[in-house]
Amino acid sequence: MKVEILTIGDEVVRGEIVDSNKALIAQRLLELDLECHYQASVRDNPADMREAFEQAVRRSDLVIVSGGLGPTRDDVTTEVLADTLGRKLELDTDSLDRIRQFFAHVGREMAETNRKQAFFPTGAEVLANPVGTAPGFGVEEKGTLLYCLPGVPRELSCMLEEQVFPRLQARLEASVGVTRIRARLLRTFGLGESTLEKELSEIAREGDVDLAFRTSFPDNFLRVMARGASTREADQKIDSVVGQIRQQLGDLVYGEGDEVMEAVVGRLLTDQGRTIAVAESCTGGEIAERLTAIPGSSAYFLGGVVAYANSAKQSLLGVPEELLVEHGAVSEPVARVMAEGVCKLFGADIGVATTGISGPDGGTPEKPVGLVHIALHQAQGAAGASLSHAGEFVFSVDRAWHRTLTSQTALDWVRRSLLGLELSHPSLLRRSGDGGGPGR
Amino acid sequence: MKVEILTIGDEVVRGEIVDSNKALIAQRLLELDLECHYQASVRDNPADMREAFEQAVRRSDLVIVSGGLGPTRDDVTTEVLADTLGRKLELDTDSLDRIRQFFAHVGREMAETNRKQAFFPTGAEVLANPVGTAPGFGVEEKGTLLYCLPGVPRELSCMLEEQVFPRLQARLEASVGVTRIRARLLRTFGLGESTLEKELSEIAREGDVDLAFRTSFPDNFLRVMARGASTREADQKIDSVVGQIRQQLGDLVYGEGDEVMEAVVGRLLTDQGRTIAVAESCTGGEIAERLTAIPGSSAYFLGGVVAYANSAKQSLLGVPEELLVEHGAVSEPVARVMAEGVCKLFGADIGVATTGISGPDGGTPEKPVGLVHIALHQAQGAAGASLSHAGEFVFSVDRAWHRTLTSQTALDWVRRSLLGLELSHPSLLRRSGDGGGPGR
Repeated sequence: MKVEILTIGDEVVRGEIVDSNKALIAQRLLELDLECHYQASVRDNPADMREAFEQAVRRSDLVIVSGGLGPTRDDVTTEVLADTLGRKLELDTDSLDRIRQFFAHVGREMAETNRKQAFFPTGAEVLANPVGTAPGFGVEEKGTLLYCLPGVPRELSCMLEEQVFPRLQARLEASVGVTRIRARLLRTFGLGESTLEKELSEIAREGDVDLAFRTSFPDNFLRVMARGASTREADQKIDSVVGQIRQQLGDLVYGEGDEVMEAVVGRLLTDQGRTIAVAESCTGGEIAERLTAIPGSSAYFLGGVVAYANSAKQSLLGVPEELLVEHGAVSEPVARVMAEGVCKLFGADIGVATTGISGPDGGTPEKPVGLVHIALHQAQGAAGASLSHAGEFVFSVDRAWHRTLTSQTALDWVRRSLLGLELSHPSLLRRSGDGGGPGR
Repeated sequence: MKVEILTIGDEVVRGEIVDSNKALIAQRLLELDLECHYQASVRDNPADMREAFEQAVRRSDLVIVSGGLGPTRDDVTTEVLADTLGRKLELDTDSLDRIRQFFAHVGREMAETNRKQAFFPTGAEVLANPVGTAPGFGVEEKGTLLYCLPGVPRELSCMLEEQVFPRLQARLEASVGVTRIRARLLRTFGLGESTLEKELSEIAREGDVDLAFRTSFPDNFLRVMARGASTREADQKIDSVVGQIRQQLGDLVYGEGDEVMEAVVGRLLTDQGRTIAVAESCTGGEIAERLTAIPGSSAYFLGGVVAYANSAKQSLLGVPEELLVEHGAVSEPVARVMAEGVCKLFGADIGVATTGISGPDGGTPEKPVGLVHIALHQAQGAAGASLSHAGEFVFSVDRAWHRTLTSQTALDWVRRSLLGLELSHPSLLRRSGDGGGPGR
């Protein structure tokens, strides 16, 4: 089944808003095993709209149209679609009553302009809008099913759920031998996209299963998609392939789906009943910000110090002046003391510290821009004694990416330590001096 | 000139990412007075891509293509476009050298798969990519100009600016009788979009000048565009209109162009030779992270404390236990002591503090989710004495937006105090209890 999403509106095409509706619709359709093939957007322009409708009917089996159902002069989706399909517009008195009731309910008079929202192409099935004035409708033309919905995200989302999905589900169940699709997203950190693809080349070549790679700096995502005669068959295929990938990549896969690194770390800290504190120089608060972005993080995140000035490193974190004089602020000994110091300061089980030169200025021949030291301190290691790890990296990327890559590496260290893994996975060390992300 | 934007990628069409590239490109093209007519997205599927290319060449004069230039197997934009236009692929040895150099620079071997990124359709003009491996290219076919660029937003944005725009500008200038366009972006914080539009309705109606409004949470942007027979004439018109807008909105306009709030604050701190420190509870490090994201911030940013746990508020910031017991951590007295305490801790001129309930949980009938107290302490006020300000807000938005709105308000307070303005602009107070962003 070829699926198309068509959004209508000047503000979308001119880029005045980022149109999240298309992603919303496409994602929700995947839940019904319906994969979107085409996305298009046109302005509130009858000729452009007509061309888009004709194309959609020609090439697609299911078309979700969003936008242009409002009461204003430039909302012309219904009129133009009716005209394109050679149908008349007919008043639906039930809809007119509901629109009137909607206004009565909010204590306002219905404007005359809202009347047009109760007209639909001949043969259309009206779809009630429980959260706004604009009803939607479904119409069939030459084997293509079109659903027209409002552009307001809240109304669109509600009507997809309540009106469109039950109808689609019923149609899908009625049809025999439909192919089922299942997808899963694996999140990896530590390998470049091309290396990743090479590592998985054997797996990628298997039939019935698609493997797609996507860079979302500093991560690389793998999307595994499998088709089967039944959902169960597709699920089994995906389980098998994901198993192979995890065997091949091991702990480079840090999570699945929406679970970002800081959420994985938060889950592990919660499960193990441990607490964390952070001492940040070059990352400037980014690690703390990411950890506390997760709801419920107050259970394990005790606090952080952004020790930008050397005096703060001394007074708050207990870095001895001699250490700063002898090794400089960007050095392994200082990073180690920072991690240990912040553990003590907040009484945390785990302390993590960063000190580096994110640039663009501040580098020297001995300590170039991009250099960073990361340290992790565990107040109570496995044997009851404290443990400390430190590592040096050179990330030759711009200031923003340097901070992101440093905070992601630091968080990955926390994850690895909580899982009892080696901190410096060989592939991670290869990141030393890693460049910009590959194009997509 | 009919303009089309075509983005390519399974992840876009399947809705796995919200494709902000199309809006980015469309917005930037408006600065050249080029209005986008069509947006389309297709999967990494040669047949679909071919159809999209053919359609674009048929109906549009300028086509910006984004995505599918990476090194992996599913990146086939160049091959499919060459095939569609009936052209061969030719190796560009300069590009291959640059890609090799890029990898050498970051201390890695170029993978064999990256080689294909140096091939381009016959007759194409190669566009260098200064921030990634994937070069882009421009090609002309039957009067239609196509530019193919990477899909990575950072690379796309950079190449639009450095490669595509100068070429388009030159073409536009070469054509006769062209009107000159100048655009300027004003950044405002503290007024809703509809209020803003109403305030400026008189100005918006003047001829030859376009005023567009765009919400970029938590800011509202105004894009002023003026046309003239010469650049100078367009500049004069824009200066006049911007002057009127600034008179009308006053200090609600906090910056222009790319200058974000934390950059404005950094510039003011630098100019006045003053220093800052931050004490964050609910913002969790976001204010420190934003301030230190600005290059050179070590000159004025001394440090920050993320005092998530109450014990940290006591031991580090000197908040008395009685205050926490009597008023609770989320209270004005605690916010004031936090701001003063962090000033002392780092020896800073200005201290700013946040304490609130970002949600989703943790609210009570007296202190609902969304409540936040912000405090600002100046160690040395105008008269030599210390000054302290505090304010209570209820931001009824989700956790992420609550933190963003709180950090933006806190930074705006710093800006206002450095400019000697009232901290609580009446319009800002109206944000108290403000809902989500405006619908569309």
